[in-house]
Amino acid sequence: MTKPVAAPSRDARAKRPGHVLHVSATLALDSGVELAPYTIAYQTYGKLNADKSNAILVCHALTGDQYVAEPHPITGKPGWWDTLAGPGKVLDTDRYFLIGVNVLGGCMGSTGPADIDPKTGKPWGLSFPVITIADMVRAQKQLIDHLGIEQLFCVTGGSMGGMQVLQWAAAYPERVFSAVPIATAARHSAQNIAFHEVGRQAIMADPEWCGGAYQQQNRNPARGLAVARMAAHITYLSEAALHRKFGRNLQNREALTFGFDADFQVENYLRHQGITFVERFDANSYLYITRACDYFDLAAEHGGALANAFRGAATRFCVISFTSDWLYPTRESREIVHALNAAAANVSFVEVATDKGHDAFLLDEPEFFATLRGFLDGCAQHRGLPGA
Amino acid sequence: MTKPVAAPSRDARAKRPGHVLHVSATLALDSGVELAPYTIAYQTYGKLNADKSNAILVCHALTGDQYVAEPHPITGKPGWWDTLAGPGKVLDTDRYFLIGVNVLGGCMGSTGPADIDPKTGKPWGLSFPVITIADMVRAQKQLIDHLGIEQLFCVTGGSMGGMQVLQWAAAYPERVFSAVPIATAARHSAQNIAFHEVGRQAIMADPEWCGGAYQQQNRNPARGLAVARMAAHITYLSEAALHRKFGRNLQNREALTFGFDADFQVENYLRHQGITFVERFDANSYLYITRACDYFDLAAEHGGALANAFRGAATRFCVISFTSDWLYPTRESREIVHALNAAAANVSFVEVATDKGHDAFLLDEPEFFATLRGFLDGCAQHRGLPGA
Repeated sequence: MTKPVAAPSRDARAKRPGHVLHVSATLALDSGVELAPYTIAYQTYGKLNADKSNAILVCHALTGDQYVAEPHPITGKPGWWDTLAGPGKVLDTDRYFLIGVNVLGGCMGSTGPADIDPKTGKPWGLSFPVITIADMVRAQKQLIDHLGIEQLFCVTGGSMGGMQVLQWAAAYPERVFSAVPIATAARHSAQNIAFHEVGRQAIMADPEWCGGAYQQQNRNPARGLAVARMAAHITYLSEAALHRKFGRNLQNREALTFGFDADFQVENYLRHQGITFVERFDANSYLYITRACDYFDLAAEHGGALANAFRGAATRFCVISFTSDWLYPTRESREIVHALNAAAANVSFVEVATDKGHDAFLLDEPEFFATLRGFLDGCAQHRGLPGA
Repeated sequence: MTKPVAAPSRDARAKRPGHVLHVSATLALDSGVELAPYTIAYQTYGKLNADKSNAILVCHALTGDQYVAEPHPITGKPGWWDTLAGPGKVLDTDRYFLIGVNVLGGCMGSTGPADIDPKTGKPWGLSFPVITIADMVRAQKQLIDHLGIEQLFCVTGGSMGGMQVLQWAAAYPERVFSAVPIATAARHSAQNIAFHEVGRQAIMADPEWCGGAYQQQNRNPARGLAVARMAAHITYLSEAALHRKFGRNLQNREALTFGFDADFQVENYLRHQGITFVERFDANSYLYITRACDYFDLAAEHGGALANAFRGAATRFCVISFTSDWLYPTRESREIVHALNAAAANVSFVEVATDKGHDAFLLDEPEFFATLRGFLDGCAQHRGLPGA
C-alpha cells in the first residue's frame, strides 16, 4: 500500500474559509458532560427571506461537512451535494436559504476531538466526550436560534444526515415545517454497528494512533484510517454497482501479475478512496462520529415505540429510500413510515429504484430528484413561499 | 482493543499431529513457478474400502484446514464440519473415507509462506509464489494419486472449498464421480475482491508485518490480521442472523458507557473473532489464500464460457446455495447450474431457505443435511456402494 499522505494539521483545517459561531453557553450532552465553550462551523447558500421562512438545514453524512454546494477547501472537489444544491437545482438557492453545518465531533471547524480542550490547553483526543446524534442536533439548534430562524422550512439529509433529520423532527417538531430523511434508519442495526466497529478497530490498531494522542506526538494513524474508509466504502455501493463499474477488470495491465499489487480496478479504487480520505479527515473524529451513529436508537429514547417520537407533529415528512441500499435498506425506511403513520403524521414515502446502492443519495438519480423537487414545491405552496 | 496473543510459531504449528505427504516432484504453478519440494498435510476419517471407491475429498474454506471431523490441535475446538462429518452423520465415516487436506499456501502443514524456502534457508514470506485454486487442486491430486484412489466418490466443500470442487470437476472430470459445490461461485465478484483487499490492506498496514518478513524479525501482525478477520466475519453472517443473535443488546452492562469499549454484544463478538483467529492463523497465508480466491474465474480459463469447463463430464453434480448468503448469493450458484445444464451435465440444484447467511454451510441446517444425505445415497447406489 502506498503510504497515505499525512493528514492536514489542525492548523491547516483551521485556515479553511467559512463561518464559525462561537457559543459560550453550556451544551448539556447525553453523556451528562456539560460542554462549553464550543464552536459550530457552517456555510450558507442563497438568501434568507424577510420572514426567515425559506431556510433548509442540510445535514451531512458520516464524513461529510458544511461544504454542501461549493468546492471543498481541502480537496478542491465540488460540494458533496453539488448535484442537488445550487441555483435552479432541486435545493434551489434562488428560492431557498441552505445551511450546511459541520457536526459536533467533526473536524472541519465544529468542536471535536482534534480541538484544544480549553481546560488543559491540549487537544481533547479521547478525553472529548462521546456525543450522540441528539447532541449534534442540539448544537445545530443553537445556530438556528442564532440566525433568528423560528421554523426551518425543511431539514434534510441522507444516511447519518437522515438520522439528524429524524432527531430534529422528534425533538423540535415546532421548528421543522418539513422533513426529508433519506437512505437512513431510526436506529443502527447490529450489522451497521459491526461495520463501524471494524473501522474503529482498524484505527485503534494503528500504533500511530497512540491511544488517541497522536497530535501531541506529531503522528497520524493514516493507515488505520484508510483501512477503515475502505471497509466502509464497500457498504456504500451495491454489489451491482461494483460489478458494473469494475467487474473483474484489470488495472492498467493485460494479465494477472501473481502478486499483491492492485491487479484489479476495484482494488485500486478502494486504495484511492482510503488514501484521499485521510487527507481531509481526523481519525478521532471518525471514532466519535461512528459512535454517535451506533448509539442512535430513536424508539429506545421514546419508551420503545418509534411512533411516540412523532406524536402530535405537524411536520410534513417525505421518506426516501433506494432499492439497492443494503446499508440502510428500505425496510428501515418502512419502519419510520409505519411509525409516522401510527402517529397520524403527514408522510409520503418513495422507494427509488436504482442499482447504485447507498451512495445513490449523493448521485444524479432522476426519480430521487423529481421526488424531492415535487415534495418541496408542495411544501413551499403550503408555507406561502413564492413558486420557482 | 485487547492485544491479540502472538501467533503460534511455525514450530508450534509443525508439532500438531497428523499426516504429511512430502512430494519431491515439481508442481507447475499457474504463475509459471515450479515448486519443489513441497508438503501436503491431510487427515482421514473412516476406512478406504477394498476397491477404493468410497473416498470423499472434503475441501476447506478460506481459513479452514484438514481437521474436518476431529478437535483442532491448536484451538481444541471440534472439527469445522463436525456437524456433518462422523459416524452415522451425513458424511458418514462408517460408510465413506473422508480426506481433509490443508490447501497449498496454508499454515497447517501444507507448504505455505510461513515455511522455510529450501533455496534460502529462510521463511518464504512474500517470495512464496502466488498460488491459485487450480494450484491447490493440483497439489491435492498428488495426494489422491499417492493414496491410489482412481476416482473420488465425491468432492465437496463450501465457499472456497466449493471453488476447489468446481476446479476438480473441470480439471479432472474422470477422477470425480460426484461433486457438491456449496455456497460458492465460479468466479470472485468485484465485491468479493473488495472485501479481501480490505483484509489484505489491514494486514499490510500493520507495521509488525515488516513487508512480509515478520518471522525473521520475531514479530507478528496480529492486530492487522484480527481486523481483517473482523471485516471478513461480517460477510459470513446475514443481517438477520446478526440481528437475531445480537440486535442492539449491550455487553454485560445496563446502559451505554459513552466510551469506546465494546458496549454492544456484536462488538464484543467481533473482537473475540479477531483475537482468537490470530492464535491459529498466519498473516501471510491469509494474503495468499485470499488472493487465490480473487484470481478464481473458471469461465475465463475456458474461453469465457463456463459451460466449456464441464463439457463431456460424467460427474453427478449437486449445487447448494443458501437464501440469505450475500457473500456468494444464489445467483452465483444459478450461473453454475446454467453452465452445467448447457454442458448437458447431470445436475441437481437446491437453494436452502435459511436466515443464517454464508455460514449456514457450517451449521446445523436440516434441509441442507437432508439434501446432501439424499444426494450421496443416490450416488452411492449408482456407484455400487453398500447402503447405510
